[in-house]
Amino acid sequence: MKDKLSTQPYKGARDFYPEDMLIQNYIFDTWKKVCKSFGYQEYSFPILEPFEIFAAKTGEEIVNNQLLSLVDAGNRKIAIRPELTPGTVRMIAQRYKALTKPLRWYMIGNNWRYEKPQKGRGREFYQLEVNIFGVGAVTADFEIFSIIIFLMQTFGATSNMFRLKISDRRLISALLQDVLKLEENIQLQTRKFMDKKTKMPEKDFREGLREIGLNEEQTEKVVGFMNSNLEGLPSIIPQNTLYENKGYVAITEVFKLIENAGLKPYCEFDPSIIRGFDYSDGMVYEVFDLSPDNRRSLFGGERFDKLIEIFADVELPSTGFALGDMTLLEFLVGWNLLPHFDSAFDYLVTLWPVENKEESDSYFSISQSYANYLRSKGFKVLTWLEQNTKLEKQLKYADKMGVKNVVLIGPEEIATKSAIIKDLETGKQKQDTIKL
Amino acid sequence: MKDKLSTQPYKGARDFYPEDMLIQNYIFDTWKKVCKSFGYQEYSFPILEPFEIFAAKTGEEIVNNQLLSLVDAGNRKIAIRPELTPGTVRMIAQRYKALTKPLRWYMIGNNWRYEKPQKGRGREFYQLEVNIFGVGAVTADFEIFSIIIFLMQTFGATSNMFRLKISDRRLISALLQDVLKLEENIQLQTRKFMDKKTKMPEKDFREGLREIGLNEEQTEKVVGFMNSNLEGLPSIIPQNTLYENKGYVAITEVFKLIENAGLKPYCEFDPSIIRGFDYSDGMVYEVFDLSPDNRRSLFGGERFDKLIEIFADVELPSTGFALGDMTLLEFLVGWNLLPHFDSAFDYLVTLWPVENKEESDSYFSISQSYANYLRSKGFKVLTWLEQNTKLEKQLKYADKMGVKNVVLIGPEEIATKSAIIKDLETGKQKQDTIKL
Repeated sequence: MKDKLSTQPYKGARDFYPEDMLIQNYIFDTWKKVCKSFGYQEYSFPILEPFEIFAAKTGEEIVNNQLLSLVDAGNRKIAIRPELTPGTVRMIAQRYKALTKPLRWYMIGNNWRYEKPQKGRGREFYQLEVNIFGVGAVTADFEIFSIIIFLMQTFGATSNMFRLKISDRRLISALLQDVLKLEENIQLQTRKFMDKKTKMPEKDFREGLREIGLNEEQTEKVVGFMNSNLEGLPSIIPQNTLYENKGYVAITEVFKLIENAGLKPYCEFDPSIIRGFDYSDGMVYEVFDLSPDNRRSLFGGERFDKLIEIFADVELPSTGFALGDMTLLEFLVGWNLLPHFDSAFDYLVTLWPVENKEESDSYFSISQSYANYLRSKGFKVLTWLEQNTKLEKQLKYADKMGVKNVVLIGPEEIATKSAIIKDLETGKQKQDTIKL
Repeated sequence: MKDKLSTQPYKGARDFYPEDMLIQNYIFDTWKKVCKSFGYQEYSFPILEPFEIFAAKTGEEIVNNQLLSLVDAGNRKIAIRPELTPGTVRMIAQRYKALTKPLRWYMIGNNWRYEKPQKGRGREFYQLEVNIFGVGAVTADFEIFSIIIFLMQTFGATSNMFRLKISDRRLISALLQDVLKLEENIQLQTRKFMDKKTKMPEKDFREGLREIGLNEEQTEKVVGFMNSNLEGLPSIIPQNTLYENKGYVAITEVFKLIENAGLKPYCEFDPSIIRGFDYSDGMVYEVFDLSPDNRRSLFGGERFDKLIEIFADVELPSTGFALGDMTLLEFLVGWNLLPHFDSAFDYLVTLWPVENKEESDSYFSISQSYANYLRSKGFKVLTWLEQNTKLEKQLKYADKMGVKNVVLIGPEEIATKSAIIKDLETGKQKQDTIKL
């Protein structure tokens, strides 16, 4: 016996057996249906991209530690995409003048990140990427929020299961720059550390801020800011600074639209929302699972008005989100929201067992022909292919595969030009006429 | 001005803009519909696979020259898949005992081959992979042929546009081994060279055979074989050898089934069909475009009963095909078979322009609410997001985007609790009631 190859997929990536694929298709189909209903158009681009488009703005953790890259025979450095936003903006930059704005685009694509596989996180994951381009007003962010909420509702989620938390990067700048007057490099360190707050006890958070170099008063201001609601902000950021801050204005406006639309139960201002991408600017938002067992960020989005500048000196106000399949699936399973999936097979057309080859071929033709007739009516139809097999074996197969109905065509049926159709769930039989 | 990054995709790979994606989705949806109607189940696996599963049997041209591979931080050599068959068999080997046979599986996935990009061929291409596992009888190959023909018909192709050409590797063995008695290594060279016959004039073909080491008589036998029909075979391969040859028996049987099913106009025996994969055994088949402008192989398939042996010492009779999106699209365009695609947008709900912010917000809520009502009825609905924009500009946008209907809700409509719906094609207007 020779050495055999492993049958396992590459570490951290998933095989989708038919039963897994039903779930994956349910998720993808729901994504598509909702995006289309909002007039979003589907697009796509290659999984390999020039390395530089991620190096520019995706953020050092992903680029330095998680990017799978290679150099091709033409000496080009290419990367397997870790996210879908830079490639999306690249496509728009390519046809910037020809494309009518606003653009509403969505795509479903797989990404790779070389990280430690864990629950709800794999090296290969699929994302739904949804963005609107060309509208700077908060009405665009509002539309994205509407899509997020409608999407979650379409999966059966209610307001007690998830919360959309919204903040604005410009508010954080007001705090770190205008109020605390930190040096630029300390601002960046502080912001990146603030992004990790939810993952640690408050004591460690204070200690970390002091290690970065913030004094007691500055530390308290940051902690106060992170725990504040919209009404509490004026006690942290002086009113004249706050009311002129574009982030504050945008947040106030968008919450008015949210209120008018009756979406307030789903949304919350939360200044601890930061986002990790270097291209995030303006509004930032994340959806949290409210399950007491698994309270965590599910997915998020942001404004990234300036990302296009890595490709061209043009204006492209941009906002949108990316939702991963693995975290969503964990959410749906956790809240018991996955539907029951229907059988993949409507019929098995059996093959009447006879020893004589000529006769068996004739039964085979008839069963194939009736199967094609059922297919033409839109049914999913299996046939039996091994000649001269006992009917018991064929029926056992139908049972194992979860087939809904079996069709029997034997000598009596041929004499009367009919087929017997048996419903395997109810056991009821009926007849259909066949052409010979 | 800083240096800008290129907006082009990686060489040889395609961006799909929304208009391209409509075509791609039409192709994928048709693939899925047909496969499901034959009771095939969808599955999927990661685009990265251990390098060895291709090195084993995919064939040296692809493995040595076209495989994109990398070594990960855990020192694993992984490759971006160039084809879908080995990964499929890996998945089955993994759950060999648990899976009820026969298995009818299909998948749609992207592959990469590092080759010179040319018309109908790119470095990234998608394939439909369709196989039946667990049936050694030719009825399984016949089912695959039925799917191929039904698939082409579903795309609108008729028997004058394509031909399914069928042969059997075991017939070629009979010729090279039993008749010509060539050494094993010469057999392999000859077979690989025979696979390239269609790409050269007959003179060059004869010359090539002689260069491999075949004498005049052997060369003539090979040429005679390649041009033979089923009836002519006994003049090339002695009858006692031929009639016992499993390939000949299989071909004869399958053509009887084809005849019975009325599929003869689509099919042809052609001994020049060879296939390039090392795992091809038994029946081999290829579909050809019959266009006089572009007569060429579109896609193909084969039996690969022994491929599973690279993973496990088990039996798995296997047959099926893989169809690429780029070649299919070229075929559909060439024969003018692409359908007209419907507009992506049923409605644009306009936003009544007013300067007063409070009032404008109120119009915004009403337009959003009516849009959501239309969405709930299954329509694809755009809204206008920039407040206080002239209606002309909004209507111009609707026109440019190919929207079917626009909705207008102004002061008069609010007074009468109605919306005006204008069909942009016919110019006709109607009213709907709205809730305020």
